[in-house]
Amino acid sequence: MTDNRAVRLAGLRDALARVDLDALLVTALPNVQYLTGFSGSNALVIVTAKECVLLTDFRYATQVEQEVGMAATVRIEPSSLWIGLWSVLQAMTGVDRIGFESAHMLHRDFSRLLDQGSRWQWRPQEDLVEVLRERKDEGEIAAIEEAVAMAQKALDTTLSRLRPGLTETGVAGILEQQLREAGSEAYPFASIVASGPRSALPHARASDRVLETGDFVLIDFGAVSRGYCSDITRTVVLGRASAQQKEVYEVVLEANRRASGAVRPEMTGMAADAVAREYIDARGFGDAFGHSLGHGIGLEVHESPRLARTVEAPLATGMVVTIEPGIYRPGWGGVRIEDDVLITESGGRVLTSFPRTLLEID
Amino acid sequence: MTDNRAVRLAGLRDALARVDLDALLVTALPNVQYLTGFSGSNALVIVTAKECVLLTDFRYATQVEQEVGMAATVRIEPSSLWIGLWSVLQAMTGVDRIGFESAHMLHRDFSRLLDQGSRWQWRPQEDLVEVLRERKDEGEIAAIEEAVAMAQKALDTTLSRLRPGLTETGVAGILEQQLREAGSEAYPFASIVASGPRSALPHARASDRVLETGDFVLIDFGAVSRGYCSDITRTVVLGRASAQQKEVYEVVLEANRRASGAVRPEMTGMAADAVAREYIDARGFGDAFGHSLGHGIGLEVHESPRLARTVEAPLATGMVVTIEPGIYRPGWGGVRIEDDVLITESGGRVLTSFPRTLLEID
Repeated sequence: MTDNRAVRLAGLRDALARVDLDALLVTALPNVQYLTGFSGSNALVIVTAKECVLLTDFRYATQVEQEVGMAATVRIEPSSLWIGLWSVLQAMTGVDRIGFESAHMLHRDFSRLLDQGSRWQWRPQEDLVEVLRERKDEGEIAAIEEAVAMAQKALDTTLSRLRPGLTETGVAGILEQQLREAGSEAYPFASIVASGPRSALPHARASDRVLETGDFVLIDFGAVSRGYCSDITRTVVLGRASAQQKEVYEVVLEANRRASGAVRPEMTGMAADAVAREYIDARGFGDAFGHSLGHGIGLEVHESPRLARTVEAPLATGMVVTIEPGIYRPGWGGVRIEDDVLITESGGRVLTSFPRTLLEID
Repeated sequence: MTDNRAVRLAGLRDALARVDLDALLVTALPNVQYLTGFSGSNALVIVTAKECVLLTDFRYATQVEQEVGMAATVRIEPSSLWIGLWSVLQAMTGVDRIGFESAHMLHRDFSRLLDQGSRWQWRPQEDLVEVLRERKDEGEIAAIEEAVAMAQKALDTTLSRLRPGLTETGVAGILEQQLREAGSEAYPFASIVASGPRSALPHARASDRVLETGDFVLIDFGAVSRGYCSDITRTVVLGRASAQQKEVYEVVLEANRRASGAVRPEMTGMAADAVAREYIDARGFGDAFGHSLGHGIGLEVHESPRLARTVEAPLATGMVVTIEPGIYRPGWGGVRIEDDVLITESGGRVLTSFPRTLLEID
């Protein structure tokens, strides 16, 4: 990992030079982890042309040593990390213009920059590290593949136990235990188990609703391996699917296939979104696909890039994105089929191999 | 719930009058939920002397109607909530000085206040709503008690299945499935299952370490009911406890008992902390209790008040706090025993009834 972190730091230093900054104060924890390897919950990192200093507290003394190694100069602060930061900055020469992460800095902390940190010039920045994180290296892709394998194993067992009479939270419990069994370090987001009419709610969690024969059961969840997330959705039917359920499912499945087959480097996020959206629209369900096609995954389960109607940025080799078209009909139900796709030179490589054909569970 | 929300709004309006503000912009989601009942992930709330307006997006149209009812005027914004906010504020008369939550406002959003919101005077505030949340009403206490019952039920089953050979994540999987079975809506924080030497790490999560006979197994977790959290820790021994394990355990247990028995209205956070700390110190383990005694629980699993060495604020009737002394010996192991305690007029009422005597699991 050390070499990759050196590459990442070099990339950030190039970006700092381009925007004429002497340093960046990193406060977003996923960015801290990306640059240094540290996964704790309390850290500040300052990156200059020559140095990378990480400040954390005594609770993490052992962990930070194991995780960071030589990737940063580590300081364990006895009280506030901010007091430590002023001390670090005062010892640096030629560091005047410092960027900070506007989308990851609370006003309370920004006030500290203006107050105790007033001898430096603070410049709000967005996405300097996030852009570097978009294209994954081999180690990151391997970790995402591990997280995909964990999720698929857990889903397989969960579906084999699905039956009418279970509650959605009961299903979530089975799923989450299987994720733990498979070695998942955490849950990247609150697992969605949405059945019957609730499957029409794109942001449902699991409720105490009891599964019934004839229900769609939509399961959207992920696993975490070495900090990296997977994110997968499958929708099944309890019992025999109706003709209408089959029709809606096939439309979503074909939209998923087309988009997964179409994504490639240089394609814009909006063009990728349009592949699925235009097909769903042509089949008469255009109003029922009320969210974007997908998003990047990595250290966060939602990160850059986005595949959405207004996104002009192009995809690039090494990005890992979700492809998740859906159709939602209020009061009736919904279908979403979500895969994780690596953008390669030759097009999309679908990392999720879990079957996509409509599963009818007896 | 409606009446309680009206009481809460009245309390906030009193506070606004005291600090000479015409309104508060609420951006912290737990504060939004406390004031309006809305539990979605995207909302802005503006509270004036006469009005309470909640802005969210179309994804939550159904949910917000169910949860908020008459507690606020709801606006579903087609695009940015901020554009909606300017429109709401422009229609109000006599609203000039507006507080915002400094600890819950990103710099990026603060920039919007200075830019598009420049016709109003923005004043950073801290803890206006958080202070109201400290003292729980009957409905909140009932919800916390439900969350305590869920956690205890899950722990009981989990301990009955504990055995050497399981991994820590495997134990977390059993625990979390049982929490789901008991109806927990979510996990308030990443469950801690720390065994053997890892029990000495106060911020360990669950790892792939395999449990062995003779290990301490420290389990720290919670449940969520109707938005409210419980937080409980028990430490057990796999097999027979050694004399040293028994000694350390008894010291922590007595510190827990003394603090739980001592807390009462008007006692300061530092005095409560001292009850446990002085006992542990007198028994020769003073350096090994490296964190605070406890914290408030409610809509968040860590909220005000704090029971810690530097806290001069007094406890008050209706607060629900954790009492969680611990002793940690690096390389050897650690013990923490954590209960949830309601402060009543006559002293602390311990809500967690799970046995505290040292459990040796064969």
